[in-house]
Amino acid sequence: MKPTIPKGTRDFSPEEVRKRNYIFDRIREVFVRYGYQPIETPTMEKLSTLTGKYGEEGDKLLFRVLNNGDFLRSADEQALQARDSFALAPSISKRGLRYDLTVPFARYVVMHKNELTFPFKRYQIQPVWRADRPQRGRYREFYQCDVDVVGSDALMYEAELAQIYDEVFDKLGLKVVVRINNRKVLAGIAEMADIKDQFAAMTVAIDKLDKVGMAGVRKEMSERGIPEAAIDKVEQILAIDDLDELEERFALSETGRRGVEELRTYQKYFAAYQPKNKVRFDITLARGLDYYTGCIFEVAADPGAYPNLRMGSIGGGGRYDDLTGVFGLKGVSGVGISFGAERIYDVLEELKLFPADDMTRLQAVFVTFDDESHFYAFRRLNELRAAGVNAEIYPEPVKIGKQMRYVDSRNAPYAIIVGSEEMKSGKLALKNMKTGEQTPLTLEEIVERCLNA
Amino acid sequence: MKPTIPKGTRDFSPEEVRKRNYIFDRIREVFVRYGYQPIETPTMEKLSTLTGKYGEEGDKLLFRVLNNGDFLRSADEQALQARDSFALAPSISKRGLRYDLTVPFARYVVMHKNELTFPFKRYQIQPVWRADRPQRGRYREFYQCDVDVVGSDALMYEAELAQIYDEVFDKLGLKVVVRINNRKVLAGIAEMADIKDQFAAMTVAIDKLDKVGMAGVRKEMSERGIPEAAIDKVEQILAIDDLDELEERFALSETGRRGVEELRTYQKYFAAYQPKNKVRFDITLARGLDYYTGCIFEVAADPGAYPNLRMGSIGGGGRYDDLTGVFGLKGVSGVGISFGAERIYDVLEELKLFPADDMTRLQAVFVTFDDESHFYAFRRLNELRAAGVNAEIYPEPVKIGKQMRYVDSRNAPYAIIVGSEEMKSGKLALKNMKTGEQTPLTLEEIVERCLNA
Repeated sequence: MKPTIPKGTRDFSPEEVRKRNYIFDRIREVFVRYGYQPIETPTMEKLSTLTGKYGEEGDKLLFRVLNNGDFLRSADEQALQARDSFALAPSISKRGLRYDLTVPFARYVVMHKNELTFPFKRYQIQPVWRADRPQRGRYREFYQCDVDVVGSDALMYEAELAQIYDEVFDKLGLKVVVRINNRKVLAGIAEMADIKDQFAAMTVAIDKLDKVGMAGVRKEMSERGIPEAAIDKVEQILAIDDLDELEERFALSETGRRGVEELRTYQKYFAAYQPKNKVRFDITLARGLDYYTGCIFEVAADPGAYPNLRMGSIGGGGRYDDLTGVFGLKGVSGVGISFGAERIYDVLEELKLFPADDMTRLQAVFVTFDDESHFYAFRRLNELRAAGVNAEIYPEPVKIGKQMRYVDSRNAPYAIIVGSEEMKSGKLALKNMKTGEQTPLTLEEIVERCLNA
Repeated sequence: MKPTIPKGTRDFSPEEVRKRNYIFDRIREVFVRYGYQPIETPTMEKLSTLTGKYGEEGDKLLFRVLNNGDFLRSADEQALQARDSFALAPSISKRGLRYDLTVPFARYVVMHKNELTFPFKRYQIQPVWRADRPQRGRYREFYQCDVDVVGSDALMYEAELAQIYDEVFDKLGLKVVVRINNRKVLAGIAEMADIKDQFAAMTVAIDKLDKVGMAGVRKEMSERGIPEAAIDKVEQILAIDDLDELEERFALSETGRRGVEELRTYQKYFAAYQPKNKVRFDITLARGLDYYTGCIFEVAADPGAYPNLRMGSIGGGGRYDDLTGVFGLKGVSGVGISFGAERIYDVLEELKLFPADDMTRLQAVFVTFDDESHFYAFRRLNELRAAGVNAEIYPEPVKIGKQMRYVDSRNAPYAIIVGSEEMKSGKLALKNMKTGEQTPLTLEEIVERCLNA
């Protein structure tokens, strides 16, 4: 009888909504300051837009929406008779839930290209859905916060996005490390180690460095068929953290040298900025996704500041040469980063970094003794609200104890107690819910205290 | 090849997102001022939560999500063999998309009742989905903005909600008429006309008064089998707009007198408030939905202020005696109202009531002549942003004409032109994009102009 919600989904309580909006608002503020514009796309996309974009595994994780009406009428009869769910699905469901914000954005750019001015700087903060096995910190409905600029190759944007990471986390009061690398540098390493064909295997292995250490990375490369000599070479180059030295090493790799050059340009722009967090080149940063072609980013809480925190990446991104090619529009490159809102929430919660107070909190509740004072208080409440105070009144003049328990449970800093005495004098009794102190004050004085609570 | 989106869904451009957020923000501000708290519920609910709550028609309009994996394995074999889509659906889809915010809210209250303090004042602004036939102004994905208080019978909340309507539309600059009635008054009319059993038929007919006039209402009642004598009686009572007179008429209807009494209590609270819009008792207001049991509300743009506007209700609500009974929790009554965000958008657009400017707009774009001035301008841009200006720079020092066209297309009020002259003097050329006027100014002066643009 008792209702429940689907596995992997969540209800958000008032407190949780407030905290989540606190994160989204800080992110949005910075996006807007940097000239990015919001777009929103529909929850449902055509499956023809979604399928084939996330690999075979991704396709399985798409939530498909059943066609309306007599959906069996156009069902694939052969698949139906074979009881083949996988083959049947496309004929009975033509829409699916958004799986990420990147594919819908690419689709948006192609559909609206004639209305857009390039470079197009957009941000998008919306939920996505994945039929993943739910576990701690992994949900079937969760928010993504993406910011991208498309239609420009300018490396200035890499610096701008690094600044955005720095500013957002500074606003959130979280110390982070932003690591930056370039896929062309990784390609250079593969070239120098003569394993150009095993580039993907190499990056997948390097991507695990944080978790498994260099010995683990070597083992993984070896298992993936990379020869020992090449592994030695990769390890040697990964130890370099100086761009000049790296450039020398890349004497025989034009791609590698181009990567170094791109990092230099990025640094030249970024040099004008005073970061509040650690922002640094890290040649070992690889990122698994293979559509990145230039700069790559990853951000995590600063282990120096929070040695006991166990939490992986809370954001990442990079440059891709061809965002919209899959929808028939060639030559649109871009660069973007993403904020992992759910993980940021968990980190702020664990480190107690959410501010205790915010402007959307209830500031005062009227408490009354009888019908007469109740009507009177309701009138004064209007004045309080008009002055900008978030306030309410207990709906009936029931026992004071019950009314005070309500004020308590709402976490309001003040109760305003109104009886015949107060009605006569016009001064209302303001009770500080923390100290218990009670003071007769004019409405103007009450407004001031509430707004500064 | 060219991608499209599902019928009845929409992409929102930056301009549209901004305008929609303008509406949501004004609504949210007032909700918060009145002590209401936000909750959010998942996009997908179990179909066991949704089905049977919206009538047979509603069930057909639910979007059902196909079960993941080999969904045919637990399919209803009989339905499958009969190719009966309707009978098959429940066995291959256990989740559906949220159809409104009321049923998920009732589900939420039941699931979380031990964490909640009553009266529980909540608001919820989220999209809902209906597989309706799309048409002008009707979409398959659209937002609802609901505000409710549950767990209290206090009629004070009716006044509070009427105030909320008044304040939100005042903030939006839209003149409206808020009409208020009470289902018990309508029940009284049915009793006095001796058609208690035909209450639903009567209210459905009265609900159409705006569209079909009194003759049409009479015709509809007649077609629904209500006798002429009763119809005469109904028409007579509907002409009464004075509560005292109405009370006399209800001498033989206790329910009717209770309705009048409730309206009087509501009015006593509301009397303390100075509405900026017309807020009035309207005995002919019926509202179709039959779960309302007390006060009912409806709001529309004021035809006196906008005689040429063709637009129906932009909000409505009422009191319901039993919100959560269907989920096994009896005795939780409540009252709430809803804002029709999509229609409000259309009205504000048609009446040109959206403010020309807002704080999320881009205020300035740097335009440069060469690499040197580009790097220099990027540095100054950081200072401008740090001072609170929403600003950016064209990514490369290409031809000035191209850069200026970009500034234009972004609707930025200012371009900041930087060449060798400006680098030398430190005064940058601020170009007003409307007047074309160009002035050499310090960065401080530029900040001031941008923030007041």
